[in-house]
Amino acid sequence: MVLEKVLAAIDGNLDKSVERLFSLLRIESVSTDPAFAKNCLAAAEWLAKELSSLGLDSSVRATKGRPMVVAHTKEHGSGPHVLFYGHYDVQPADPVELWQTPAFEPQVRTVGGRKVIVGRGAADDKGQLMTFVEALRAFVEIEGKAPLRVTILLEGEEETGSPSLAPFLEANREELKADVAFVCDTDMWNDTTPAITTMLRGLLLEEVVIKAADRDLHSGLFGGAAINPIRVLGRIIASVHDGQGRIAVPGFYEGAGELAPEITAQWRALDFSESKFLGEIGLSAPAGEKGRHVLEQIWSRPTCDVNGIIGGYTGIGSKTVIPAQASAKFSFRLVGDQNPVAIREAFRHFVRSQLPADCKAEFHSHGASPALQLPLDSPYLKKARETLAAEWGVPAVLKGSGGSIPIVGNFKRDLGMDSLLIGFGVDDDRIHSPNEKYNLSSFHKGARSWARLLDALRS
Amino acid sequence: MVLEKVLAAIDGNLDKSVERLFSLLRIESVSTDPAFAKNCLAAAEWLAKELSSLGLDSSVRATKGRPMVVAHTKEHGSGPHVLFYGHYDVQPADPVELWQTPAFEPQVRTVGGRKVIVGRGAADDKGQLMTFVEALRAFVEIEGKAPLRVTILLEGEEETGSPSLAPFLEANREELKADVAFVCDTDMWNDTTPAITTMLRGLLLEEVVIKAADRDLHSGLFGGAAINPIRVLGRIIASVHDGQGRIAVPGFYEGAGELAPEITAQWRALDFSESKFLGEIGLSAPAGEKGRHVLEQIWSRPTCDVNGIIGGYTGIGSKTVIPAQASAKFSFRLVGDQNPVAIREAFRHFVRSQLPADCKAEFHSHGASPALQLPLDSPYLKKARETLAAEWGVPAVLKGSGGSIPIVGNFKRDLGMDSLLIGFGVDDDRIHSPNEKYNLSSFHKGARSWARLLDALRS
Repeated sequence: MVLEKVLAAIDGNLDKSVERLFSLLRIESVSTDPAFAKNCLAAAEWLAKELSSLGLDSSVRATKGRPMVVAHTKEHGSGPHVLFYGHYDVQPADPVELWQTPAFEPQVRTVGGRKVIVGRGAADDKGQLMTFVEALRAFVEIEGKAPLRVTILLEGEEETGSPSLAPFLEANREELKADVAFVCDTDMWNDTTPAITTMLRGLLLEEVVIKAADRDLHSGLFGGAAINPIRVLGRIIASVHDGQGRIAVPGFYEGAGELAPEITAQWRALDFSESKFLGEIGLSAPAGEKGRHVLEQIWSRPTCDVNGIIGGYTGIGSKTVIPAQASAKFSFRLVGDQNPVAIREAFRHFVRSQLPADCKAEFHSHGASPALQLPLDSPYLKKARETLAAEWGVPAVLKGSGGSIPIVGNFKRDLGMDSLLIGFGVDDDRIHSPNEKYNLSSFHKGARSWARLLDALRS
Repeated sequence: MVLEKVLAAIDGNLDKSVERLFSLLRIESVSTDPAFAKNCLAAAEWLAKELSSLGLDSSVRATKGRPMVVAHTKEHGSGPHVLFYGHYDVQPADPVELWQTPAFEPQVRTVGGRKVIVGRGAADDKGQLMTFVEALRAFVEIEGKAPLRVTILLEGEEETGSPSLAPFLEANREELKADVAFVCDTDMWNDTTPAITTMLRGLLLEEVVIKAADRDLHSGLFGGAAINPIRVLGRIIASVHDGQGRIAVPGFYEGAGELAPEITAQWRALDFSESKFLGEIGLSAPAGEKGRHVLEQIWSRPTCDVNGIIGGYTGIGSKTVIPAQASAKFSFRLVGDQNPVAIREAFRHFVRSQLPADCKAEFHSHGASPALQLPLDSPYLKKARETLAAEWGVPAVLKGSGGSIPIVGNFKRDLGMDSLLIGFGVDDDRIHSPNEKYNLSSFHKGARSWARLLDALRS
């Protein structure tokens, strides 16, 4: 059994794997500060060299910002072509004084009975990306080559919004296109339960400006006669949701669909504490659609929020003004097959239909992207569920993400690929914060998980 | 007939009166800019000297800001003691390039068939205050003394919010207290119809801060589950008015009363064009309480407006945040006997009663003052109506003012006096703007009006 030998190799190499990860963690590849550009380059070169040593055709590729690392297996078994994505850049260490040990001097510590790797980037994302590299290494050690055709893409600008990524994908479409993408930058359900993120909500961003009089008015001289755009906007905001927390824009729920019963059942059975989830942010009651589980509310149900509002006088004290305009930034989270463009039009119509005499509405679009959903019958998802269950002893949670993960949209739109989002971080990894850590078990069993999945996918 | 001689003296002195006003207008007594502090002092000294020359006991009194001029008649006939108020400070001339003749080089010009006095302060308020001085001068010329006991108070900070006025009144209460105040800083109904402002709306200023989660939240990760303070605030704003434009805060209309039928009839008969009034600010439809004349909406009916609102991200583009708080500045215009303190409590209760779980409301008061109303049966008002009708040949319009005139509140609260607000400005005087003017007829007949009123009041 090749797989057992590969897993044994991962086990046997663990100490050396940790040392290799330490070498990468010591490189201060902070992407947001130009002073660290050379460190980013060093991290990219370190990774390219590492991948070359595994027999891959590796290169560091310049962009307008931080470089990309691209590597292709030269020898491999047969099966689907996999594109693996990770990022080598990290958040700044600030505030440095809150680190118990220096951010870029990684170490293994025992915390609360768990062995953890501490250091900036341990979980986000160097530790995660190295799980895949270590899995690949074990195959090369045992079989002399990769089990499948693999392309690896590691970027250095994830923490700064990935400005170079879309142009790079476009310019290198043929080189990077594969059958499926593996993205390793997400979390497990908890320390011992793996998860696959299969649903990402879409996002429609729409700013509304309500205009009335042609100038700001004195509220004493005109108050009572002149229409007030803040009041108009308040009524519009109030009208977007009905008493059940559902969105009242006509046609909004078209295509939203419902969860597969299997997933609903899994979510409702999870050890998820609504009161803990909300309590951590100072809240106690779920405020969304009535009759929905909180996980549905944040993962699989569409929403509307107002992210910002401004109008009139907002300084200290008072000013008796009826402003000429007021504006609000609305955002809609979309699910299933909801069509962002159709919803944008429906929303604009909904707003216009409520305008009183003398009011106009201006709209500014700040983006419209549909939800992304990995079909439940995807063969990659099926193999991932089987292999994660085999490694961890419990089924993987199929979860959603309320926020967007832009890379997944890029892979879908630009390269026509679905993404399998599997990561081994956990809630308390403190990513972006002092004392970031990665469970040693995540690092070790993460590599074993990839090994199992790569093995299962070969034909 | 003494009055006829006094009026004849005013007529005969008109050219010299205009020259005297020009001397005052040439002094650049801009109060907002400290560079003009010496000019303000010069204007105060000019006025004190002028009043001394009429036999008054005059003085320039220092404050923390611009000085006050106070003058008392030494010799006078018998009757009520009158306090006359005006202000000698003016707005800056900017933008100076838009003046057809220099702002501080006054002249008489014929514009649209009317003779007008052009210059900064011509209408606001030097021309107005000099109407009273010229009336007094005529009495002194004809009778050797003032017809009544008169105290004159001229301030130099009206254009900067009168910061020294309240302390000055308090410190000099006994000196300044009279039977009635004449305030000359308002408008006529039109060029040929005088007006007395008898109603000033009160003002309650209340800022509401809605707080929910203990931090700003990512709207992707929490949207759908976490309460959004902007949405809560929107619903509160929407709930303040009912479908008829009336304010839904329980108890709000207590004490609001209704206009005397005489006044309603006068207002409805005025040549007031709703479409012109609203058209000038880019509006066409009155947005206030249904079934009310626009003049009622702005003068005699209470209102609620939102003067400012802010929450979440208000910069360029978008940010997917559910803010921890959102706030709005509400203002209520009050009429009749509405009690600002009771309404503040009722409003706070109204807001709190609408808060969903996990939301708190904080309130910040920015002021609460009741409406001021000169009783229709006031003997001063009766004499003013008779004498203005005699001078102008048409009845004076008894009008309201939607905005506040703080001095009137000060006189009422601090000195226990009602104020008679009579002024001779007109709509197109362009106060605060380039090419400010004052109708020569306002200046001339204004002085005659005061002469008639002073004569009518003596016993």
